[in-house]
Amino acid sequence: MTVNPDGELTRRLDLQHVFHSWSAQATLDPLAIAGGLGSEVWDFDGNRYLDFSSQLVNTNIGHAHPAVVKAIQEQAAVLPTVAPSHADLSRGRAAAAVLAHAPDTMSKVFFTNGGADANENAIRLARLFTGRDKVVSHYRSYHGNTGAAVVATGDWRRVPNEFARGHVHAFGPYLYRSEFWATTPEQEAERALHHFERVIQAEGPASVAAVLLETIPGTAGVLVPPPGYLSGVRAICDRYDVVLILDEVMAGFGRAGSWFAFDRFDVRPDLITFAKGVNSGYVPAGGVVIRADIAAMFDERVFPGGLTYSGHPLAMASIVAALAAMADEGIVEHADRIGAEVLGPGLARLQDAHPIIGEVRGVGVFWAVELVADRATREPVPAAVMGRVKAELMRRGLLPFLADNRVHVVPPCVVTADECARALAIYDEALTDVEADL
Amino acid sequence: MTVNPDGELTRRLDLQHVFHSWSAQATLDPLAIAGGLGSEVWDFDGNRYLDFSSQLVNTNIGHAHPAVVKAIQEQAAVLPTVAPSHADLSRGRAAAAVLAHAPDTMSKVFFTNGGADANENAIRLARLFTGRDKVVSHYRSYHGNTGAAVVATGDWRRVPNEFARGHVHAFGPYLYRSEFWATTPEQEAERALHHFERVIQAEGPASVAAVLLETIPGTAGVLVPPPGYLSGVRAICDRYDVVLILDEVMAGFGRAGSWFAFDRFDVRPDLITFAKGVNSGYVPAGGVVIRADIAAMFDERVFPGGLTYSGHPLAMASIVAALAAMADEGIVEHADRIGAEVLGPGLARLQDAHPIIGEVRGVGVFWAVELVADRATREPVPAAVMGRVKAELMRRGLLPFLADNRVHVVPPCVVTADECARALAIYDEALTDVEADL
Ligand SMILES: Cc1ncc(COP(=O)(O)O)c(C=O)c1O
Ligand SMILES: Cc1ncc(COP(=O)(O)O)c(C=O)c1O
Repeated sequence: MTVNPDGELTRRLDLQHVFHSWSAQATLDPLAIAGGLGSEVWDFDGNRYLDFSSQLVNTNIGHAHPAVVKAIQEQAAVLPTVAPSHADLSRGRAAAAVLAHAPDTMSKVFFTNGGADANENAIRLARLFTGRDKVVSHYRSYHGNTGAAVVATGDWRRVPNEFARGHVHAFGPYLYRSEFWATTPEQEAERALHHFERVIQAEGPASVAAVLLETIPGTAGVLVPPPGYLSGVRAICDRYDVVLILDEVMAGFGRAGSWFAFDRFDVRPDLITFAKGVNSGYVPAGGVVIRADIAAMFDERVFPGGLTYSGHPLAMASIVAALAAMADEGIVEHADRIGAEVLGPGLARLQDAHPIIGEVRGVGVFWAVELVADRATREPVPAAVMGRVKAELMRRGLLPFLADNRVHVVPPCVVTADECARALAIYDEALTDVEADL
Repeated sequence: MTVNPDGELTRRLDLQHVFHSWSAQATLDPLAIAGGLGSEVWDFDGNRYLDFSSQLVNTNIGHAHPAVVKAIQEQAAVLPTVAPSHADLSRGRAAAAVLAHAPDTMSKVFFTNGGADANENAIRLARLFTGRDKVVSHYRSYHGNTGAAVVATGDWRRVPNEFARGHVHAFGPYLYRSEFWATTPEQEAERALHHFERVIQAEGPASVAAVLLETIPGTAGVLVPPPGYLSGVRAICDRYDVVLILDEVMAGFGRAGSWFAFDRFDVRPDLITFAKGVNSGYVPAGGVVIRADIAAMFDERVFPGGLTYSGHPLAMASIVAALAAMADEGIVEHADRIGAEVLGPGLARLQDAHPIIGEVRGVGVFWAVELVADRATREPVPAAVMGRVKAELMRRGLLPFLADNRVHVVPPCVVTADECARALAIYDEALTDVEADL
């Protein structure tokens, strides 16, 4: 195999000078990505990978979608950047395009650079709207790395970063590893709701500004909530006048086979946070969709939040193009079908064949496969096994997304049935090899 | 004057659906910007404005610089987005290009989406490096709108957002409105340093992780520090083993007529935060430049921070192109000369002519003009006068940057002597009109 010098240069510059997210820097062995199209990426030596990670679960429209690339190129030539205080046509169009998929109680969009600052500003809006401080979120969650978002986060990433006050966590539903001694989805939903309301009661409902939940907790394991859970949370929020923020950063814009993941459930939030899939991350962007009366509170009163690149024209043009292409090409419906007809059944077959698989769950192009050392105890496989799984998948040309003891199966929404079949065969072979050595 | 329907559409969509930063939404009367080139922008009716705001003081290279536009267009076609864990050639090149302008004690760059999250991650690094909590910054400062950055911020924007602990503020040097009863720059520097050290002593130096200062506080009024202040702060940090973070988000990359603003002073920071000028904001980007030993602390230990778009290829390509063009075209040296030979002398002449001007200060293309009701008392002009100043400037085709009682004169670094002469004439006329009515 030839070794293209640009691949070596890419790796050398990276290891020398780039400080990486959420990593021990000396343990990295980064893949030098040279290009991509649709559901594939390739390195500088021409090795191709099925991208079943969607990078960080963001390239919902696939890599290098021509309509979005073109929109970026055109906007770059017109004007790449305009301050937030002026009006920009792409920005207004992007706001209208996002609102077109939101409940009609929503009137405005506040744009940010990504998911973390979307959550920061949603929390800010909820606190100012209610005059209360506390934010209740799930332990199994990730909401971003900035001051408030990282403390709203429930997972290990919060712990070294707890410098913000006013954050409370509760356990959410997760039947496979129930915190509530539940044995059915109905029981899990009912008990999780009881627990959630008890936490709010014990915190003092009059101190709670917001409930902030991922509609489908993503990095935590694609924890599709059981029927009744989200509508129950909505009822609790209504009971205590608490603002319900649904974090759709990972779950939204096609990932769950619907425009917003909450479209699949009987629930409407007061604020929606988004990023990733809205423009597939082609340009950094995120935002908050705001209920009309919450937005109106800041008609005469100054909203005390903001950022230089709020509504950045290049990002906005990519949102307009991405949402139009997704609608025109039926990409969201396609993702739904792929989940129901291909990935769901295919992963279920894998589970039948592989004792290492403890549970498979998901919807659309948003799936998690839990690997366990023992199906009876559900003990997660150790980290070394996950390292082996990763190597076996990469070796066979699949770029995976791994989290804890799970393989997240999260291809672009445009993934074809054929590509899914190839991926399922690769997962199958890799797991067979890993199991053989256990 | 014809009214282009796209201008109306832009304003209508904006007012209906876009929620704006740091504003009361119903009081906005946004300018619909249709395009720009160099130091000019225009609206949909063809009205042209000298952009003496650089939008939010970020378009250092001017609008639509062809080399940067081309780099964005090319990278968009290759691959717009790559997850932070992989290696990307533009990202490695951008890190190397930023480091080329930093002290050689620095080894790595952590990329973010903007200035706020750059400061968040610099604070995180300092806390983990020192094992201490507190961050000391200036009251007259702005560091961003996210959880920690907004509480590190000293100005009014902190007050409705104080949900993070561990932040302490001190007064910085500002001779024109001295907090220290000083009458000379030397005295101001000496007393400000005394005050700063006393705050650190009183907080308990062993609890202080970082000092976070804008090298030249920007939005607070282009408060160029007096000789000896920053080197004095460096000595205090060394005395107590405190990490010195210099926020170069606004001051860096040409704004102050040097690559980093601290190049003009006898000081070297441990961490540098940047955004804006590094790529003129053509794509949202920011970052932290990290001293080698601080970066090395995370060779084996996981760095607990990160974001989806860290080192975003499109942003990285724009950084590489912007820094190359700035070097090739001598843009930083040009900004320095424009400050020394055109803007400095020109604004001094305005001050001689206009009693409403209390002080002029700055360097490079980074100037503030303080408007006062009375030169003796230095009482700021009321908000209504500033509204009038804005209207008079806009009417004459100059897009201004106003903050409190100040006009910030902050054109792109590429502004020509001719454009400065036109702008100076406009400031002159506008102030003449405003003064006539007082
Ligand atoms: C559900 C959720 N919220 C928020 C974020 C943070 O987004 P960003 O990395 O753009 O700040 C993420 C990122 O993975 C996420 O998955
Ligand atoms: C000195 C300084 N730091 C940080 C920031 C925050 O940057 P951003 O708006 O990109 O978050 C700004 C923005 O104006 C700034 O001027």
